[in-house]
Amino acid sequence: MGKGRLEAFSDGVIAIIITIMVLELRVPTGHSLASLLPLAPVLLGYVLSFVYVGIYWNNHHHMLATSHRISGGALWANLHLLFWLSLFPFTTAWMGENHFAAVPTAVYGAVLLMAAVAYWILQQTLMAAEGPGSVLRRAVGSDWKGRLSPVLYLGGIALTFWRPWAAQSVYALGALLWLIPDRRLEKAIEGSARESTDR
Amino acid sequence: MGKGRLEAFSDGVIAIIITIMVLELRVPTGHSLASLLPLAPVLLGYVLSFVYVGIYWNNHHHMLATSHRISGGALWANLHLLFWLSLFPFTTAWMGENHFAAVPTAVYGAVLLMAAVAYWILQQTLMAAEGPGSVLRRAVGSDWKGRLSPVLYLGGIALTFWRPWAAQSVYALGALLWLIPDRRLEKAIEGSARESTDR
Amino acid sequence: MGKGRLEAFSDGVIAIIITIMVLELRVPTGHSLASLLPLAPVLLGYVLSFVYVGIYWNNHHHMLATSHRISGGALWANLHLLFWLSLFPFTTAWMGENHFAAVPTAVYGAVLLMAAVAYWILQQTLMAAEGPGSVLRRAVGSDWKGRLSPVLYLGGIALTFWRPWAAQSVYALGALLWLIPDRRLEKAIEGSARESTDR
Amino acid sequence: MGKGRLEAFSDGVIAIIITIMVLELRVPTGHSLASLLPLAPVLLGYVLSFVYVGIYWNNHHHMLATSHRISGGALWANLHLLFWLSLFPFTTAWMGENHFAAVPTAVYGAVLLMAAVAYWILQQTLMAAEGPGSVLRRAVGSDWKGRLSPVLYLGGIALTFWRPWAAQSVYALGALLWLIPDRRLEKAIEGSARESTDR
Repeated sequence: MGKGRLEAFSDGVIAIIITIMVLELRVPTGHSLASLLPLAPVLLGYVLSFVYVGIYWNNHHHMLATSHRISGGALWANLHLLFWLSLFPFTTAWMGENHFAAVPTAVYGAVLLMAAVAYWILQQTLMAAEGPGSVLRRAVGSDWKGRLSPVLYLGGIALTFWRPWAAQSVYALGALLWLIPDRRLEKAIEGSARESTDR
Repeated sequence: MGKGRLEAFSDGVIAIIITIMVLELRVPTGHSLASLLPLAPVLLGYVLSFVYVGIYWNNHHHMLATSHRISGGALWANLHLLFWLSLFPFTTAWMGENHFAAVPTAVYGAVLLMAAVAYWILQQTLMAAEGPGSVLRRAVGSDWKGRLSPVLYLGGIALTFWRPWAAQSVYALGALLWLIPDRRLEKAIEGSARESTDR
Repeated sequence: MGKGRLEAFSDGVIAIIITIMVLELRVPTGHSLASLLPLAPVLLGYVLSFVYVGIYWNNHHHMLATSHRISGGALWANLHLLFWLSLFPFTTAWMGENHFAAVPTAVYGAVLLMAAVAYWILQQTLMAAEGPGSVLRRAVGSDWKGRLSPVLYLGGIALTFWRPWAAQSVYALGALLWLIPDRRLEKAIEGSARESTDR
Repeated sequence: MGKGRLEAFSDGVIAIIITIMVLELRVPTGHSLASLLPLAPVLLGYVLSFVYVGIYWNNHHHMLATSHRISGGALWANLHLLFWLSLFPFTTAWMGENHFAAVPTAVYGAVLLMAAVAYWILQQTLMAAEGPGSVLRRAVGSDWKGRLSPVLYLGGIALTFWRPWAAQSVYALGALLWLIPDRRLEKAIEGSARESTDR
């Protein structure tokens, strides 16, 4: 019940988050190419966050495609995830406008970490409602990416106090990890579809 | 007729409201942790309002799931609710930026109150269209939460002139009231589904 | 074909328009009730525009519910309508911040007028695609409200140069005209539903 | 799988992009008609970009209507397109506020070019998933508009260093190219619908 509206609402919030980040790209006063230069770090941060929000939308999309029961708890676990994602525009702008200084980079990583934790909670809530042997459970499998990501973000936060650029590299690596197509869920869905056709 | 678009439009407006509130978290000029400190009250207010808007979305979602007839009056009762919800970003920012001063806290409570009244009007309009003995009417039941909430908000508004923090505690209590899972509607829906299967 | 996405996209744009108007209610610097006073005209303008955008959403919703064929021309007629609606936040803020001065009030009316014209064009395009004897054509009927509205807006624009408040009264009257429930479309839809059941 | 949510998410992002562009029309401080004059170039740029984003929504809508398989790659190709579209509000405002100066006009053209390239990539990804002899492939056909557009944008960018207005004319021409109704896709869809009815 209600999966359609949960998806529609999440799509709406994620669509707004991914788009209002660009409002932090403030229009420069000059009209030379040089006046665009100070925006480079903000743009870079925007690209990183755009990719991260895109990854969350993508994974959210696949996860819900394999879910059939949405409990009241899942609605709140979903809102909790959206809350942390909604802080991305703020941390992205703060990090970009301060040229990737240490503290903003660490706070950026902390929000990445909390979003990953919130996603994991949502996934657990959905899996619990589906019961054992569900398509979702098989699809998530060992979830090595989901378990590695928080470790990467923690490592990134620690690295900011040594070299901020090292932290950003780790965050970018964390995004690349997910950009590599995730065949697990797609396979499990296809497998499940094949099974039900075979019967 | 038209339930789908009513839900889609409400989802859109609520998604935007919940997300633009975060735009009031203005990026600080410094890049130390200390420069984040003045944002703490704004962030706290944001969390409270995020939870409230989440509650409204949640309840709206459940209420419409049990509704079958959307009258012209319901479309306007719904817009009336969205109007009051659209003032949340303003009152949240005003309260947060003034460190929860008395008057902004009272105005915040007044908007909470008006939203609760608007929700009640929408609920009555939907129930009237459903007719007696409807799933929605059974689901709403005694509606003690819906009747207690406005009293809490009125109490909160009164308390602001004594101690603003007492008002905020009452508002937070009002949110907790709804966060506790509401089994009423879910049970009624399941009961109705079971009945129609039994036949 | 494509009615679903046309509705979804229009809902999205109208939801954003109705919500970003509230961003013009800038948070005041003081925290007394008196510091809210200068916002009164902006809030008043917001209420008027909120009602107008609500009316457009409402009518758009009913009009599309009776349409079955969406031509390529209708997609563009719809975008044309959304363009004029997207100027509402600007004209609302300009009129409100200038305490309903003559020129901003006239420009506000001009955008109201253009939106009404754009709505009429969309209606004609949809009716042409439906063919003669369609539910939509019967529902629109004599369309006296649609034909009176532009006259009212023109009258309002003319009145701004005499007394701006007279113009605003005319705009408010134009909104009230539509707020009175429009039974035409609802009746026609019901009639059509009854007919097809009777067969 | 997942076509519905891909469309819903894209609709959401495109709806926000097309609407936040209007936020760059900053409310002037004066209340005379003369105070609106400096906004003329910003408004002109807004109109051009509104039409371009409308064209993208329109074409996206038609392209997905003929697609049946959405691969993981298509989800990312779609996000890539949305990324470039999300830069439209920035480049539009920069160009408008600088009265169509050379460099902002060239950057505007570069973003137009990248969006066209991203659209082409998405189209190729979707066609590859559909396989040979698909409705989409027949509908796209020779795609002369899709192949001419990047050439126009490149020409426009080159012209900015000679006369910026020449570049803007070329961009406007590029929009007109798409505004002329595209019967290809509509015909192919109708043809396919007729075929499946005939069987």
